[in-house]
Amino acid sequence: MKCFAMLSIGKVGWIEKDKPSCGPLDAILRPLVLAPCTSDVHTVWEGAIGDRHNLVLGHESVGEVVEVGSLVKDFKPGDKVIVPAITPDWGSLEAQNGYAQHSGGMLGGWKFSNIKDGVFAEFYNVNEADANLAHLPEGVDPSDAVMLSDMVVTGLHASELADVGFGDTVCVIGIGPVGLMTVAGANLSGASHIYAVGSRPNCIEAAKFYGATDIVNYKEGDIVKQILDKTNGIGVDKVLIAGGDNDTFTQAIKILKPGGIIGNVNYLGDGDYINIPRIEWGVGMGHKSIKAGLTPGGRLKMAKLASLLETKKLDTSKLITHRFEGLEGIEPALMLMKDKPIDVIKPVVVIKY
Amino acid sequence: MKCFAMLSIGKVGWIEKDKPSCGPLDAILRPLVLAPCTSDVHTVWEGAIGDRHNLVLGHESVGEVVEVGSLVKDFKPGDKVIVPAITPDWGSLEAQNGYAQHSGGMLGGWKFSNIKDGVFAEFYNVNEADANLAHLPEGVDPSDAVMLSDMVVTGLHASELADVGFGDTVCVIGIGPVGLMTVAGANLSGASHIYAVGSRPNCIEAAKFYGATDIVNYKEGDIVKQILDKTNGIGVDKVLIAGGDNDTFTQAIKILKPGGIIGNVNYLGDGDYINIPRIEWGVGMGHKSIKAGLTPGGRLKMAKLASLLETKKLDTSKLITHRFEGLEGIEPALMLMKDKPIDVIKPVVVIKY
Amino acid sequence: MKCFAMLSIGKVGWIEKDKPSCGPLDAILRPLVLAPCTSDVHTVWEGAIGDRHNLVLGHESVGEVVEVGSLVKDFKPGDKVIVPAITPDWGSLEAQNGYAQHSGGMLGGWKFSNIKDGVFAEFYNVNEADANLAHLPEGVDPSDAVMLSDMVVTGLHASELADVGFGDTVCVIGIGPVGLMTVAGANLSGASHIYAVGSRPNCIEAAKFYGATDIVNYKEGDIVKQILDKTNGIGVDKVLIAGGDNDTFTQAIKILKPGGIIGNVNYLGDGDYINIPRIEWGVGMGHKSIKAGLTPGGRLKMAKLASLLETKKLDTSKLITHRFEGLEGIEPALMLMKDKPIDVIKPVVVIKY
Amino acid sequence: MKCFAMLSIGKVGWIEKDKPSCGPLDAILRPLVLAPCTSDVHTVWEGAIGDRHNLVLGHESVGEVVEVGSLVKDFKPGDKVIVPAITPDWGSLEAQNGYAQHSGGMLGGWKFSNIKDGVFAEFYNVNEADANLAHLPEGVDPSDAVMLSDMVVTGLHASELADVGFGDTVCVIGIGPVGLMTVAGANLSGASHIYAVGSRPNCIEAAKFYGATDIVNYKEGDIVKQILDKTNGIGVDKVLIAGGDNDTFTQAIKILKPGGIIGNVNYLGDGDYINIPRIEWGVGMGHKSIKAGLTPGGRLKMAKLASLLETKKLDTSKLITHRFEGLEGIEPALMLMKDKPIDVIKPVVVIKY
Repeated sequence: MKCFAMLSIGKVGWIEKDKPSCGPLDAILRPLVLAPCTSDVHTVWEGAIGDRHNLVLGHESVGEVVEVGSLVKDFKPGDKVIVPAITPDWGSLEAQNGYAQHSGGMLGGWKFSNIKDGVFAEFYNVNEADANLAHLPEGVDPSDAVMLSDMVVTGLHASELADVGFGDTVCVIGIGPVGLMTVAGANLSGASHIYAVGSRPNCIEAAKFYGATDIVNYKEGDIVKQILDKTNGIGVDKVLIAGGDNDTFTQAIKILKPGGIIGNVNYLGDGDYINIPRIEWGVGMGHKSIKAGLTPGGRLKMAKLASLLETKKLDTSKLITHRFEGLEGIEPALMLMKDKPIDVIKPVVVIKY
Repeated sequence: MKCFAMLSIGKVGWIEKDKPSCGPLDAILRPLVLAPCTSDVHTVWEGAIGDRHNLVLGHESVGEVVEVGSLVKDFKPGDKVIVPAITPDWGSLEAQNGYAQHSGGMLGGWKFSNIKDGVFAEFYNVNEADANLAHLPEGVDPSDAVMLSDMVVTGLHASELADVGFGDTVCVIGIGPVGLMTVAGANLSGASHIYAVGSRPNCIEAAKFYGATDIVNYKEGDIVKQILDKTNGIGVDKVLIAGGDNDTFTQAIKILKPGGIIGNVNYLGDGDYINIPRIEWGVGMGHKSIKAGLTPGGRLKMAKLASLLETKKLDTSKLITHRFEGLEGIEPALMLMKDKPIDVIKPVVVIKY
Repeated sequence: MKCFAMLSIGKVGWIEKDKPSCGPLDAILRPLVLAPCTSDVHTVWEGAIGDRHNLVLGHESVGEVVEVGSLVKDFKPGDKVIVPAITPDWGSLEAQNGYAQHSGGMLGGWKFSNIKDGVFAEFYNVNEADANLAHLPEGVDPSDAVMLSDMVVTGLHASELADVGFGDTVCVIGIGPVGLMTVAGANLSGASHIYAVGSRPNCIEAAKFYGATDIVNYKEGDIVKQILDKTNGIGVDKVLIAGGDNDTFTQAIKILKPGGIIGNVNYLGDGDYINIPRIEWGVGMGHKSIKAGLTPGGRLKMAKLASLLETKKLDTSKLITHRFEGLEGIEPALMLMKDKPIDVIKPVVVIKY
Repeated sequence: MKCFAMLSIGKVGWIEKDKPSCGPLDAILRPLVLAPCTSDVHTVWEGAIGDRHNLVLGHESVGEVVEVGSLVKDFKPGDKVIVPAITPDWGSLEAQNGYAQHSGGMLGGWKFSNIKDGVFAEFYNVNEADANLAHLPEGVDPSDAVMLSDMVVTGLHASELADVGFGDTVCVIGIGPVGLMTVAGANLSGASHIYAVGSRPNCIEAAKFYGATDIVNYKEGDIVKQILDKTNGIGVDKVLIAGGDNDTFTQAIKILKPGGIIGNVNYLGDGDYINIPRIEWGVGMGHKSIKAGLTPGGRLKMAKLASLLETKKLDTSKLITHRFEGLEGIEPALMLMKDKPIDVIKPVVVIKY
């Protein structure tokens, strides 16, 4: 079958592979809608997870089931399903401990385009199908739904980490597609003032649509100063990090109230250390909690998020700025994520049969 | 001064009292906007808290500070403030334990028109002013803000009790003014399907405005059957109770999933027992948690909720169906709550100076 | 193979069955130590789960693996393992929601001697072996360890439900073997005053060993009055229910502080309703939470509890009052649980090879 | 009155001050037992809180009430009371938010020997007496009780931050007096394996008494390697930090499982940044939470912890290695904390009248 793969660091291309085999708990799917992710860019061009050869890329998909293993009960060929980026082993000790993302070891639930082939192919395998697939609800557009695989679940996880509640003031750092869903998550959690840090015009417009009340442009000065000015020097209840780098945490601590929480969902690709400023952290006694974690996966999470689309409580269509058709659209879509022209938020690739 | 009071069970009227005195931690306010509450009706006509003589009624107000005690630091005469229905003693053991509502004993934070004179008067006293008043934010309409004192904080508390989260399916029982804010609270907490149980047309319209996706009319059949039908027999993640009676809990258990939570904010005025059905409660092993509690009060809560109005994340104006002017409007406003004509949701009384 | 089974309501006996088959995720075990449970008594003589024919009884065991399915990775024949009473389907939506006990439906994780054959047999099947078995740590006595399957995990779950913390005052109702582990759980959670309600002398002695500071004998008067007297009328922070009946909840509410929590792990076998007293429940506003649930199961829980035995932080040997040898000891052991002579707490049946 | 004060950085001495005045919410106490704290040493000889002139030192005391303000209800002259190191303003927004320690601003609840005179004097003032004093229970030794003011409440707070539960494996870094209470707190929370990092013989002995199962001596090699060796490379569920410096967090992250929590109660006196190692932190996605905060204060906390002494669930006497008599014992006791001879854990100063 035809697959779009990482050939080695810095190189991508179309290759042929055998159609994946289907274990007793697995399902084989063909893609209906795919989307490339900034992580794919990190993987290929920054070597973020090390060198890989002929690793099929992609972890965001809505697909159609074509085969199921002998132990699969709830899905059958023909079913249209949402596939999460993270597909844990649900019996693992980590999953029993509430952290399925880390099944079998830290980040172990991240399998697609990491420890197994991804979804940018004519067919792909999903492990523990009953536990990791969710039926696409009637009336939900598959392109809107493919945003759930990673963008929505990751963005909303920041608010879960930081326990955003009614009337909280929140700063969201980063308003790319995950950051926009982080804004939406804070808004869906009852936040009042949402200070969104970013600069690109169409992202700013989308941030306001998703609930940002104030835009803080880092090109117009130190964001710490800007946010302290806007909050009378008091800072915010929660900081959600969906962009930036290691130094972003230093800024986050400085704008956080005692008793506040940082929720980070940003992948940190460089550097040895994240630096927590001692004084502003209350010399270790300020109750400024730092939480940071890989997005959840699995069926329940996808089903619950899909119900937000079904009931129109969340509209992911504002994320989608570019649409491609056919498998061959994968390459230009990925290059768009790599080159990030000013008008892109997120492309999708729609496969028609 | 002129006060509108409960004279005895079943009797109300205007009386004269001395202007309240101001202790070192207190403030004296005059009302800007007042609202009567169904609790006032229970107090007077059902004798819900026992017989009382010449007790000034009312616990929902936005006021203007006219005097402050010697230890008050953050408020001064002329300040416009939101006053919560519940004004706890913040140093009490119960407050230190996270339940300020019960300061000094169960329900002890409920002082107005219960253990001290209420707000339906030319002047009223607020205890621990620094801890119990919140500044009215600029740009927020005082009539909208008076909904925070009890309606909003109580309605939203149901979701706090039940820990409503992203994509939860929620049933809200009761869509009077508190019930409508319960719907709004579930919506602001990320619920997807919200099944609102009620029958009055303008309440149904408002429930949809606040986020209800389905209306369940108890006049059209057993609500348990209706909700199980709508959820394929599975039931809901959370049940929020803002109306009904003791038997409502029996229904709630029947429509709740294992692992689900009931959040009750409804005052239960009659009967000896709330009946939990043994079988549907999983013979005591179903992990269907039952939480029920008096609305929170205090300054922080009012300030956070006011920020939802300030940022337009919540619009309370849809609750207000009737407006009266002047102190003398209190009586007809209260009678409206007592008689509940079909078109009333909530009246306000605006005092002009 | 030889099995000890429920023949029908009120009748037990030895029967022959085929050795169970081993699915790809399963393991087949032979028992090393078994213990009968009061639930077995309820099942047989009270028909608590309905009529059953030739259902193998028993759900408490330490065993030796004799066969594993093709997908099992962490266990092999010869391994000595602890088997929980509750063996969930870990991929289910309920497990993903944090309630594996209810996998596939309320109480669905309870499989042994309920929806599949139990452990009172020469061989028995364990589903999802990698997720449901735990290695017996070196140095831990198998008889002590068999107490983990149900007694320890259930007793400690009461404290988990009620979130017992440092210096909490706790009332534990019921001091049979689960109740004693409930006392131990409160003690291991940092409770200070533990009021244990019971009457049998050797249970009282054991309760003191496990951390009870006060014994309340229900034969000496109303326990509500006794506990209110001991607490200056204030009541306790938490009530843990491990015995009694539906009316126990009425008592529990009466001795609970506002903001307190009831944690129930008792199986409620009779009656239509559990009655919550309206007034003492604060007319629905007292923040007296009611939590009640089936004991957790699975590998992680067993492994963590086994580490308490390994490090001598918990000594289960005080529960074991009677020891039998050989499979044929099952019958007299079970009759002991049925007849409850004054000196029994818990018997074990040790199988030697 | 006679006071023992910080004269300036590096200098201490006896001075005369007026007896403190008593505001309407305050109490004036005379000390019964005092204890010096390592924080006093930091304050004086490291200038940790900046330069101060004639600031009375000391924040650990059990005292006798000699005067109360006009609004104080629950205490009267002659009452023997436990005084917490942290005496918050309970009506503050931070206290309403659950972080009374930070009332009025980060660390604002820490008043004694910081923003007001401390307890090393013939008399001292306690703010919000009803909310900040706790009656000394009958039968509890005042010397044992003075350990509650800071040592016990701080040590146990580490487990509260890290949510230690049944069967958790825990590493406690630092076994000075706070570290020993951190070990005790983990043990009282149901931890199984407790790896205590330290080196001094009498602290090691005490750590074992309080529940440590393994001692890790940092003088015998890298503690990261030692703990990974002891845990088969897996690490621990929780790391509690009660000693060390900024680099201790780097070690803590390396020995923590995904999904684990660091609970820090150590004061960090030096350096610009706490360094979180990027890779071992899961590139920002490992769900290794970092919590760190000032010890709680107030009446409820003291009362609950005192009940642990009253019921013999905690024995603080093993902390006390040296006893002095009379106010004049303050100076040698403080010098003992400064010089830390090998045999000291904690001295107390007993005042007799």
